[in-house]
Amino acid sequence: MGEPTEFRCVNCGQLFPPWSLDYACPDCGPDKGSLEVLYNYRALGRRLTPKSFAETQQHSLWRYEELLPMGREHAVSLRAGGTPLYPCRTLAAELGLRGLWAKDDGLNPTGSCKDRSTAIAMAAARKLGRASCSCASTGNAAVSLAGFCASAGMPGYVFVPRTISRPKVSQLRAFGVLVFAVEGTYEQTYDLCMEASVRYDWFNRSAAVNPMNVEGEKTAAFELWEQLGGELPEYVLVPVGDGSFVSGLCKGFRELVQVELAQSSPMVFGVQAEGAAAVAHAFSRYQRGESVHPATEPAQTMADSINVAKPRDVVKAVRSVAEANGGFVTVSDAEINEATHEIARRVGVFAEPAAAASYAGLLRLLDSGDIPAQARVALMMTGSGLKDGGVSLEGLTAPIVVPPQLEALAEHLDI
Amino acid sequence: MGEPTEFRCVNCGQLFPPWSLDYACPDCGPDKGSLEVLYNYRALGRRLTPKSFAETQQHSLWRYEELLPMGREHAVSLRAGGTPLYPCRTLAAELGLRGLWAKDDGLNPTGSCKDRSTAIAMAAARKLGRASCSCASTGNAAVSLAGFCASAGMPGYVFVPRTISRPKVSQLRAFGVLVFAVEGTYEQTYDLCMEASVRYDWFNRSAAVNPMNVEGEKTAAFELWEQLGGELPEYVLVPVGDGSFVSGLCKGFRELVQVELAQSSPMVFGVQAEGAAAVAHAFSRYQRGESVHPATEPAQTMADSINVAKPRDVVKAVRSVAEANGGFVTVSDAEINEATHEIARRVGVFAEPAAAASYAGLLRLLDSGDIPAQARVALMMTGSGLKDGGVSLEGLTAPIVVPPQLEALAEHLDI
Repeated sequence: MGEPTEFRCVNCGQLFPPWSLDYACPDCGPDKGSLEVLYNYRALGRRLTPKSFAETQQHSLWRYEELLPMGREHAVSLRAGGTPLYPCRTLAAELGLRGLWAKDDGLNPTGSCKDRSTAIAMAAARKLGRASCSCASTGNAAVSLAGFCASAGMPGYVFVPRTISRPKVSQLRAFGVLVFAVEGTYEQTYDLCMEASVRYDWFNRSAAVNPMNVEGEKTAAFELWEQLGGELPEYVLVPVGDGSFVSGLCKGFRELVQVELAQSSPMVFGVQAEGAAAVAHAFSRYQRGESVHPATEPAQTMADSINVAKPRDVVKAVRSVAEANGGFVTVSDAEINEATHEIARRVGVFAEPAAAASYAGLLRLLDSGDIPAQARVALMMTGSGLKDGGVSLEGLTAPIVVPPQLEALAEHLDI
Repeated sequence: MGEPTEFRCVNCGQLFPPWSLDYACPDCGPDKGSLEVLYNYRALGRRLTPKSFAETQQHSLWRYEELLPMGREHAVSLRAGGTPLYPCRTLAAELGLRGLWAKDDGLNPTGSCKDRSTAIAMAAARKLGRASCSCASTGNAAVSLAGFCASAGMPGYVFVPRTISRPKVSQLRAFGVLVFAVEGTYEQTYDLCMEASVRYDWFNRSAAVNPMNVEGEKTAAFELWEQLGGELPEYVLVPVGDGSFVSGLCKGFRELVQVELAQSSPMVFGVQAEGAAAVAHAFSRYQRGESVHPATEPAQTMADSINVAKPRDVVKAVRSVAEANGGFVTVSDAEINEATHEIARRVGVFAEPAAAASYAGLLRLLDSGDIPAQARVALMMTGSGLKDGGVSLEGLTAPIVVPPQLEALAEHLDI
């Protein structure tokens, strides 16, 4: 099992003994000073081989226990990770790519990649002997926490903007957590959850503030590597809201290099909606040598899981992507909508709009030449389309209403 | 890879060379004479060991390729099977059971156990060089076929009753198959699909008629056995609509015995809604020594995936359950609704009502003493709750609407 050596502030670099803090660096504060979990990579590198993970016989993220902050004796039953990677051969050929893969993280137990972070955050809560958990989110992380709380038999408190989609509310209510629908923005919802968690001693698994999230999310990178037979693609595209998942992925790729299982990280590109692009803008400022303060911007996109005005993991996300020699790209809601349909029609994955945004980003980056012909590209599909009330059916063929008679079909068939 | 030796009519026992027929026994017809795929179990029994499957390193149903009718070179990319099995320890303790497990088949790629049958039916279509596929269904099988057609780049034609749930229609439209919404019952929809498939030479994957379905569904039994460390529970409960899935499961358990990997099959109980219980009624007739003719009955339940008036696999289902020393139980819609909530709240699985019916069935069978205290029981959760517009939220705590202020929370917290 894994054994963290230190927790390090991503902003000032200060080191803390593992488990000495729950959330952020006390000097830099929660907006900038999120913590990163470090391991003895040299020792791990001597021990881990390309076959180490298969030998565990685990099909969940606990397959990577050696690189996780606690042993799987703390795991909740719900199975996070182990999601499929699909080769998209005809699409790759049409786009002039040497390889294209889509990883369907919508097949996590509650339907999104957030189950990876929740799995580790909840295991941490159990390891630390905490009695209850909390979370603020645009929906997916809240639903995920609710499902894991139900599985663990632990009380949960979730905070969502009053506007989240109906399927997500149904899941939350069914899982039996206490749901606060906040009359305010996601940003106010987030802050309220943090205050309440401190006041009532709930273990808060909201994005950025809890260093365990990234530890769960990084396992998607490990899986990608293993599913490609111990190779990494040249480019990875990932939708970005708060910036947590992209940070986690980048950390995963870095760790594969640190333990000498991979030569170098893929170039990681974050994809944001044009109407909610605070991390992309921060990245531009960073490239111009300006500082990466978390800034609140207007946010408006139909892709609700990345509709974030004040990204909480902006510092980590921007630095991670820069280190991975990647970048950011923004796409319109129309492009996201078209990507949702294209991924369903061509890959067989019904992804939520935020998830399909990674495909829209790919088309942009191929157009601009940032991703060259003959590249090998992986797309992260971060959540299921069944969770999103906002999937637009505009432009799709409607069902053909027919009476139950064979003769009625002929006129609709091109045969 | 597997190699069928014969196709056998479940009604008259006639043997046919493998692949000589697509659908049913020509003498018994599609209503009674569905075909069963046979293998050389003696030879397989000599070859297969408890470790055989793990050695394939496959995490999908292709892990069981040796017991499947074709090799995985015909497989479509979408990953069917490999779904998690969750131990429900506190629930087991409360119910006085020695063990209780829930298998979440809602985590198949399009959200239901139907992906198992589709995976094998589509692989058969490819092996046979067929150009397109079709399906009639109450929803889940149609959605499944649509997803696999998208993944395979094969044209698909699906037939659904005009009344199916909105999320399922969204998936169908997104996957890009041609959807016929039939103004009629499921029974008329089914017959129309069969007629059209014959006329236009589509490979029809509708329940019962296609022997490949059961070959996919049986893999759930193999997984259960492997996930319990090479053991089987004493009782397995499974929701029944058309009767295909329960037949598949029973065949899987039988085959484990035939290849000498298990001593005996679990007792398999089919669960139906009180308002749509045609298979349960046929089973009662069978037990009284009467014949098992497919009969059409009124069907009315909120659990749309098992709302079947004329079950197409009734002969196979009744015989399979009888051979497994099991039985049938019916439950009310109110019990199904409560089971949906209980499984979400206690297990962390948001199942569709039809899927949660298996838990309602367990409560009934414990009450009646048909399942004794200290038994070991597995519940098959056949589909995701996100696919069903009919999940009722009645009786669940509503979200608490609050302004974004800490003081607003206190009155709602019991702390």
